[in-house]
Amino acid sequence: MPEIALMDNLWIMICAVLVLFMQGGFILLEAGSTRMKNAGHIAGKTIFTVGIASLVYWAVGWGFAYGEGNLFIGLSDFFYGDYSTAEEGLVGSVDFFFQMMFAAIALTIAFGGFAERAKLSVYIIFAVLFSAFVYPIVSHWIWGDGWLAELGKQDFAGSTVVHLTGAMAALAATILLKPRLGKFNKDGSSNDLAGHNQVYTALGVMILWVGWFGFNAGSTLEVADAFFGYVALNTQLAAGAGAVAAMFIVWAVSGKADVPTMLNGALAGLVAITASCAFVAPWAAVVIGLIAGLIVYASMRFFDKAKIDDPIFALSVHGVAGIWGTISTGFFATQELADMVGGRAGLFYGGGFTQLGVQIVSVVACGLFAFVASYILLKVTGAITGGLRVSEEEEIVGLDLSEHGSYGYPENMPGQGTNTGA
Amino acid sequence: MPEIALMDNLWIMICAVLVLFMQGGFILLEAGSTRMKNAGHIAGKTIFTVGIASLVYWAVGWGFAYGEGNLFIGLSDFFYGDYSTAEEGLVGSVDFFFQMMFAAIALTIAFGGFAERAKLSVYIIFAVLFSAFVYPIVSHWIWGDGWLAELGKQDFAGSTVVHLTGAMAALAATILLKPRLGKFNKDGSSNDLAGHNQVYTALGVMILWVGWFGFNAGSTLEVADAFFGYVALNTQLAAGAGAVAAMFIVWAVSGKADVPTMLNGALAGLVAITASCAFVAPWAAVVIGLIAGLIVYASMRFFDKAKIDDPIFALSVHGVAGIWGTISTGFFATQELADMVGGRAGLFYGGGFTQLGVQIVSVVACGLFAFVASYILLKVTGAITGGLRVSEEEEIVGLDLSEHGSYGYPENMPGQGTNTGA
Amino acid sequence: MPEIALMDNLWIMICAVLVLFMQGGFILLEAGSTRMKNAGHIAGKTIFTVGIASLVYWAVGWGFAYGEGNLFIGLSDFFYGDYSTAEEGLVGSVDFFFQMMFAAIALTIAFGGFAERAKLSVYIIFAVLFSAFVYPIVSHWIWGDGWLAELGKQDFAGSTVVHLTGAMAALAATILLKPRLGKFNKDGSSNDLAGHNQVYTALGVMILWVGWFGFNAGSTLEVADAFFGYVALNTQLAAGAGAVAAMFIVWAVSGKADVPTMLNGALAGLVAITASCAFVAPWAAVVIGLIAGLIVYASMRFFDKAKIDDPIFALSVHGVAGIWGTISTGFFATQELADMVGGRAGLFYGGGFTQLGVQIVSVVACGLFAFVASYILLKVTGAITGGLRVSEEEEIVGLDLSEHGSYGYPENMPGQGTNTGA
Repeated sequence: MPEIALMDNLWIMICAVLVLFMQGGFILLEAGSTRMKNAGHIAGKTIFTVGIASLVYWAVGWGFAYGEGNLFIGLSDFFYGDYSTAEEGLVGSVDFFFQMMFAAIALTIAFGGFAERAKLSVYIIFAVLFSAFVYPIVSHWIWGDGWLAELGKQDFAGSTVVHLTGAMAALAATILLKPRLGKFNKDGSSNDLAGHNQVYTALGVMILWVGWFGFNAGSTLEVADAFFGYVALNTQLAAGAGAVAAMFIVWAVSGKADVPTMLNGALAGLVAITASCAFVAPWAAVVIGLIAGLIVYASMRFFDKAKIDDPIFALSVHGVAGIWGTISTGFFATQELADMVGGRAGLFYGGGFTQLGVQIVSVVACGLFAFVASYILLKVTGAITGGLRVSEEEEIVGLDLSEHGSYGYPENMPGQGTNTGA
Repeated sequence: MPEIALMDNLWIMICAVLVLFMQGGFILLEAGSTRMKNAGHIAGKTIFTVGIASLVYWAVGWGFAYGEGNLFIGLSDFFYGDYSTAEEGLVGSVDFFFQMMFAAIALTIAFGGFAERAKLSVYIIFAVLFSAFVYPIVSHWIWGDGWLAELGKQDFAGSTVVHLTGAMAALAATILLKPRLGKFNKDGSSNDLAGHNQVYTALGVMILWVGWFGFNAGSTLEVADAFFGYVALNTQLAAGAGAVAAMFIVWAVSGKADVPTMLNGALAGLVAITASCAFVAPWAAVVIGLIAGLIVYASMRFFDKAKIDDPIFALSVHGVAGIWGTISTGFFATQELADMVGGRAGLFYGGGFTQLGVQIVSVVACGLFAFVASYILLKVTGAITGGLRVSEEEEIVGLDLSEHGSYGYPENMPGQGTNTGA
Repeated sequence: MPEIALMDNLWIMICAVLVLFMQGGFILLEAGSTRMKNAGHIAGKTIFTVGIASLVYWAVGWGFAYGEGNLFIGLSDFFYGDYSTAEEGLVGSVDFFFQMMFAAIALTIAFGGFAERAKLSVYIIFAVLFSAFVYPIVSHWIWGDGWLAELGKQDFAGSTVVHLTGAMAALAATILLKPRLGKFNKDGSSNDLAGHNQVYTALGVMILWVGWFGFNAGSTLEVADAFFGYVALNTQLAAGAGAVAAMFIVWAVSGKADVPTMLNGALAGLVAITASCAFVAPWAAVVIGLIAGLIVYASMRFFDKAKIDDPIFALSVHGVAGIWGTISTGFFATQELADMVGGRAGLFYGGGFTQLGVQIVSVVACGLFAFVASYILLKVTGAITGGLRVSEEEEIVGLDLSEHGSYGYPENMPGQGTNTGA
C-alpha cells in the first residue's frame, strides 16, 4: 500500500478508538446525571449495549447501511469478514470499525431517553432493533448511496445521522415510557431529580470533548492537506463557545451558574459543529457554538414545561442542537471550503436557499423516520417484554437492585452502612 | 528514516500510550471492586507500582527478556540508554517503551490477587522481583529468542505472556495470603464482599477496552497493509460477545443480570482474543468471545466454591480466559492468516493437532513457571517483610488508614461526618 | 503535501488531543484534592475555563505569542482563521491547535491556587486576562521570537513556559486570596483539609501521566528519527522515579506512605522532565525524577510552614519542580543530544556554566513576570468583582451551593438523605 493510504488508515484507526472512548464519557455523563440507586445499572448497561451494537452492526447493520441496494437501504455485505488490503483509501476493516463506533454512539444517545425506568430487557431488544434498522437506514440515506446523498445533504460528521437519529429515538422512548415518578407534580410544575455526581458529569463531558476529535476530525476519512487540524480547531471553538454561552444565560436568568446547564452547553456546541466543522470559518464556529449554548438552555426549559421528561438532556443536546448544527451549515458554509470538501455554499456566502433547503428537508425526513421507526419498534419491544417500564416498586427501590440484584454503591445506601468491618 | 518506518514507530508510540492508559482502567476496576476503606490504597498503589515496574524493567527486565542470551533468559542490554535511529522497523526507544508498558500491565494484573490484605511493603518488593524476573523470563521464552518461540508458539498480543503470567502470580499470592476476613464462612459458604462502586468498575472496563486496541492492534508492530484494522475488529467483536454471553448466563442461572459478572465477560472476551486476534475470522472472534464470557462465569463460581478468594477476579478474567484464548488459536487460526502473520493453522483449518499441542504445552509451561516463581519470590518477600499480610486489626480498619495514614474518602467514613463546615 | 509533513501533522494532532485530555486529569486531581461541598464547582469550572482559554487564545493570545512583533510581544495574527496547507512542517491549524491546548493547561494550573474560596466571577475574568496576556507573553519570550529564545533558553516542552507560569499565577492568587478558613490555627500550626476522594486523585494523576506524552513527546513537533520515543522513555522514567522517591521520603519521615504525597511525586517527576526530556540520558531522567520527588515533599512542608495555602499543591508540583526541571537541563544536557535537538550541553557534559546561567536567568525572569503580572491582573479583577473571595458563609456552605445553586453530590450531603424514593 502507498504511504498516503497507510496514513489515512492509521489516522482513522486512531479516530475510531477515540470515538469508542466517548462511551466512557457517556457512562459518566449518564451515571452522574441520574440518582445513586440507578448508577450501577446505567453505567453497566452501556458496556453490554456497546457489545450488542457491535455484534448487530457487524451482522446486518453495515450491510443495510453500506451494502449495494437502492436509495432507501443497502442489501449486501452482511457478516463482514474481509481482511484484504487496498491500493488507496481505507481498507475495509478500518472503514468498518470506524462506522461501527458511530453506530454504537447513536444507540447510547438513544438510551438517554430510557433512563431510570426502562426494563433491562427493553434495553437489550431495542439495542438489537435500533442497531439493525434505524441507524443503518438513516446513515444509508446520507452517507451511503441513499436519496439524501443524491440531494447533496451536507452532514460532515453526523449532526443528523448520529445525534438527531439518536435523539429522536430517545424522544419516542421518553413519550412511551412517560415521566419518572415524582418528576412532574399535579399542578404542572416539575421537580429537579438532580443527578448524583457532578464530578462524573464534568469528567464525562471532558472525555466526550476529547473523543469528539475522533468523531469530527476523523470524518475527513483521510490525512490529505492535514485538513483535520482545521476541523479540530472549529470543533474546539464551538465547544468552548457553547459552554460559555450556556453558563451566562442560565446565570443571567436564574441567578445561579448551574453546572449541568453549562456542561450541556459545551456538548451542544460540539453537536452543532459536527455537521458544519469542515464547511465554516472559525468565527462562524464560535457563533454556531454560542447559539447552540443558548438554544440548549431554552430547549431544556421547553421540555420541562412541556412535561416531557428528558433525564440526560438527550433531546436538547443531541436533538435540538443537532437540528441547529445541520441547518447552520446551510447558512455559514463558505464557497471556498464547500469547493474543497465537496458541497455547496450557504446562504451567507452566496449559495442562496438551495443548500439551506436541502438541510431542512433532511432534518425533517431523518427526524421523522427515526422517530416513527423507533416508536413502532418500541411498541414491538413492549409487546415482547410485557411493557417497557419497571413496576412502581422497582423504580422506587432503583434499577440497580431490581434489575441487577445489587446496589452500585452498596456502602452508601440506606441500611447498608459503611463497611469498615470485615 | 524511510516514511514507512516512521509510520511504524508512530503507530507503536501511540499504542504504547494506550497500553499505559489501561492502568487508569485498572485503577477504577480495582478500586470499584473493593471496599471503601481500601480505595485510596488500591488506587494509589497502582501509580507507584507502575513507577517501580518501569524503573526495574529499564534497569534489568528488558535485558533478561530481549538481551542476547540463551533459550531460557537474555543477558545483555541492561540500563537501556540508546537514542539512535533505525533504517527500518522500530527504533530502540519506541520498541522499549512499548514492551515496558506491557511489563507494567502484567504486574498490575498480578496485584489483583493481593487486594485488601497485603502489606504495602509486599507490593513494593514483589513489584521489583516480578518485573525483574518473572515477566521478563516468560516474555523471553515466547517473544524473545526463547524455547517456546522456537517451537512456534502463537500468542499475538499476550494472552499467555501478559495475562496468564499475571494471573498465576495472583494465584500464588491469593493462596499464600489466604482469603480476606469474612469472605468464607465456617460452613463453607461464601459472602459477597461487594465492591463499593460499579460506576468505577464499568468505566474501568471501558477504559481497558479502549486501551486494548493499543495492546492488540499495536502488536502488529507495524502499519503494513493496515492490518491493525482487522485485529481491532476482531477485538471489538470478542469483547462485545463476552459481555453479552456473561450477562445472559448469570441472568439465566441466578435470575439477576449481575453487573460485575457482565463486566468480567467483556474483559474475558478481550483477554481471550488477545492471543488469536490476528489469526482468526471475525465469526470465530465472536465465538471465542462468547465462550470466554461463559467460561469466566463458571470460573468465578469455581473459585468461590474452591474457597480461593479472588477479589478482583484476576484468576478468572486473566487466567482462565487467558488459557482459553491461547488454546483457541490452536482451533481457529486460519491457514490464510497464519501464512500472512507467520504461524500455523489451527485444528479447524486443516492444521491438525500440531499448533494446538504447542499452545497447550506453552500454557502449562508458562503457567507453571509463573506460579512457582511467584510463589517462591513471595516466600522470599514475606521473609523480608515479616509476613505478607497486615494484622487483623489493620485489615478491619482498612488499608487506607493502616498503611497510608488517611482515608481515601475522609468525608464518607464513620465518625468523620460530611465536612460542610470549614 | 509530502508524506513526512503529513506525518508530522498527524503526530501533533494526536498529541494535541492528548494534551486536552490532561484537563480530565486536572478535573479529577482538583476535585479529589478538595472537599465534597466544592466538588461540582471545581470540576465544572474546568470545562468553561478551557472554553474561555480557547476563545481568548484564538482571538488575541496566539497573536501576542507568535505574531510578528518585538522581543517582548507578538502583534499580529489575531482571530486566526487560516486553513491553508503547508509544503513542509506543520500546517497553521495544527500548530495553532497544539499551542492552544498548552495555553489552556497553563490556566488550569494557575487555578490550583484559587481553589475552594475564589468567586466564580474571578475565575471568568482572570481566565480572560491570563489567556490573553500572561501566558502568551512568556511563551513569546521562550518559544516565539522573544529575548529568551535569543539567549538560547532550553525548555523543551514547557517546565517554565507552562508549569512555572501557571504556578506563579497560582502563588499570586493564593497570597491575595489568603488561606482557606480553618487551614491554619492561631498557634501557627496547620490542619489537613483533606481532599475527599483519593481514587479521583490517583486516576487524575494517571490521566495526566498519559496526556503528558502528548505534551513532551509532542514537543518534538515532528516525527523525524522517531525521536519521540526517546523523549517518551525519559518521561516515563522520571515519573516513576518521582513517585517512588516521594513515597519513600514521606514514609521515612512521617511513618505513613501518604498517598497524595506519592501522587505529587509522580507529577513532580513529570513536570521536572518536561524541560529536559530531549536533552538528557535515561539515567539522568531517573535522577531528575528522584530529586523532583524529594523536592516536592520538602516544598509541600515548606509552604505549609510558611502558612501559604496551596490546596492542590500547584506551587510545589508545578512551581518548585518546574524550576528544578528547568535548571536540571543546565546540568544534565548531553553534548550529543544538544547538538541533535539544538542547544548547549550542561555543566556535567562540558558545557560549563553558560547554559546553566541561561536557565537560571529564564526562571527568574519568567517567574517574576508571571507573578507580578498575575498579581496586578488579580488586583484589577478584584476591583471589578468587588473582592476576590466569597463570603465566609458561602465558603462554609461550599461553592457548589453558593456559586452554582446545587450540590455536586446532592445525595451525600447533610439534610439531603440518600434518595432511594422517587
